[in-house]
Amino acid sequence: MNELFASPSHRSGLRLEDRLVERARAGDRRAMARLLTVVETGGPDAREVLARLYPYTGQAHVVGVTGAPGAGKSSLVNVMTRAYRARGQTVGIIAVDPTSPFTGGAILGDRIRMQDLHGDPGVFIRSMATRGSLGGLAWATRDAIKVLDAVGYQVIIVETVGAGQSEVDIAAAADTTIVVTVPGLGDDIQAIKADHDGADTVVTQLRTMLTLGTGRPRQMWHHGAQVDLPAEGAPAANSRWIPPICKTVAVKGEGLPDLIRAVDAHRAYLEQTGEGVRRDRARVRAEFLDLLRHTLLEHLMAQLSVDEIEARVDQIARRELDPYAAAAHILKMTNDSGRQVHR
Amino acid sequence: MNELFASPSHRSGLRLEDRLVERARAGDRRAMARLLTVVETGGPDAREVLARLYPYTGQAHVVGVTGAPGAGKSSLVNVMTRAYRARGQTVGIIAVDPTSPFTGGAILGDRIRMQDLHGDPGVFIRSMATRGSLGGLAWATRDAIKVLDAVGYQVIIVETVGAGQSEVDIAAAADTTIVVTVPGLGDDIQAIKADHDGADTVVTQLRTMLTLGTGRPRQMWHHGAQVDLPAEGAPAANSRWIPPICKTVAVKGEGLPDLIRAVDAHRAYLEQTGEGVRRDRARVRAEFLDLLRHTLLEHLMAQLSVDEIEARVDQIARRELDPYAAAAHILKMTNDSGRQVHR
Repeated sequence: MNELFASPSHRSGLRLEDRLVERARAGDRRAMARLLTVVETGGPDAREVLARLYPYTGQAHVVGVTGAPGAGKSSLVNVMTRAYRARGQTVGIIAVDPTSPFTGGAILGDRIRMQDLHGDPGVFIRSMATRGSLGGLAWATRDAIKVLDAVGYQVIIVETVGAGQSEVDIAAAADTTIVVTVPGLGDDIQAIKADHDGADTVVTQLRTMLTLGTGRPRQMWHHGAQVDLPAEGAPAANSRWIPPICKTVAVKGEGLPDLIRAVDAHRAYLEQTGEGVRRDRARVRAEFLDLLRHTLLEHLMAQLSVDEIEARVDQIARRELDPYAAAAHILKMTNDSGRQVHR
Repeated sequence: MNELFASPSHRSGLRLEDRLVERARAGDRRAMARLLTVVETGGPDAREVLARLYPYTGQAHVVGVTGAPGAGKSSLVNVMTRAYRARGQTVGIIAVDPTSPFTGGAILGDRIRMQDLHGDPGVFIRSMATRGSLGGLAWATRDAIKVLDAVGYQVIIVETVGAGQSEVDIAAAADTTIVVTVPGLGDDIQAIKADHDGADTVVTQLRTMLTLGTGRPRQMWHHGAQVDLPAEGAPAANSRWIPPICKTVAVKGEGLPDLIRAVDAHRAYLEQTGEGVRRDRARVRAEFLDLLRHTLLEHLMAQLSVDEIEARVDQIARRELDPYAAAAHILKMTNDSGRQVHR
């Protein structure tokens, strides 16, 4: 343990956050839900909770499940969860839903379908949704993973809609990613260039696959036709993992043992090759730099007068001042004022 | 003019960047292309060029054209450009292509189709593509708009694929956005919940529309069936602009005069209501805060030892230190060292 953990608020042991953490780690589901809400809300309380939980993280295997709406992600998550439970592993599920009111009905249906998992004390389900930015959602998802990890869930499944960079960011938090594709994909590939109408979905999915495949070993899961990964999507040279493709019919449970075996094999690969440690460090590093950026800006903003910023924005908007000179000027002012105070 | 513009490098007038800016503003197309490359590459040279160009920005009308691949964006951009040229306005085109190799063929076809615009000195076409992050692409697109604006193009058309948050970010740089949708959309809306296969494209498009419609007046353009905007996508209460829907067949030029009129009407609306000034200031503010963040981090990183950062990352990855305490510690060290140096 580092001395930096021993901040006064950690030592007191009387704060609400500390009690919540203790109760959640003892299995209190209400405390877990409260912690997740605190973390999702953000701010100093969230940082306090996450700092307190951090030493216990890094234990769970985080499995991302991504794919287009209607591809069958929730059904798959449902049957995968049962399979993990059958062999005694606890499962945390984070369902990320940055979608519009239009898919609300379907998503709600999925949630109801998952209801039968709710009675199981070894399963915890959390839906994440936000009216804010997807970037913020990715951050909140990473933090929710940390909570469920620290609280003791052994497998954490993160279900996201597979479209756009932000979902890729969310998937980057996973150790293993399963890309769910719709039936008939193989037949459609040849038709993309000739026939644009209706093929966009396929393009989006392939793009997601390629992005996920770049430099990172990934799981692929596919129900329907067999698809070979294009060369562009192959893992980087330093990795020998070839993403397997599993044909599965979730409602019948067909192909599920193969899929679970593939996820296990990927976890073993990550552990045995040191790739898992390397990826965890890269993830920690990226998150830490993000956090430093955020902390710094908060610090600067607290030092600066809002009036000063708004006055500069007015000048920039009138094209009387360029933003680069203004930023340099504010940075210099901040340094100078720091010097004056402490001289 | 503010005294901050008069930095030494601006005064010397001998630097390559200064000469490029002068030549580009005098109509030298090679100099424009060089400037765009400098800006796309980023770093101090990019900031120097952008600072130099900044006083001349804010003149062009920036029109975003977004929609799914194959919806006919490039054909529309082509005929719109001819229409603007026919009435004597110069046109800059920025084609943003964050897509995979799969759509490369189609995009290339579009570019070739646009070739016939290349002979016109009143038209400048720039394709933007990157292997990097979409966030970086949004930044580069905003900067490219500034270059073409400062160089004197009167209308700047930004063509982007309409999917995901980052494309929305790119579209946010536009004064007016045209959402291009595929024929048959109206018929499909009712089918979304019943029939997921193939409907995902429609969902994605509607989502983009809704996102674009939130709080911002927008243009809508549609070839094929008539579509009414859902209530959720209506402009905010403080805005009275109702996005019109124009039915157009680009290859035949059908409906184009209506579309151009709608864009003109939107520009007039922005100017007459003060909404344009308000939006420009909001955009300037957001970009300035982004830049401050970036500048600060660069400044901090220059002060910190890489070894210190990497040592902390190692501790965090081993769960010996939590990232929040580590960030606070580094922030404190930075402040303290600032004090010591200047005490």
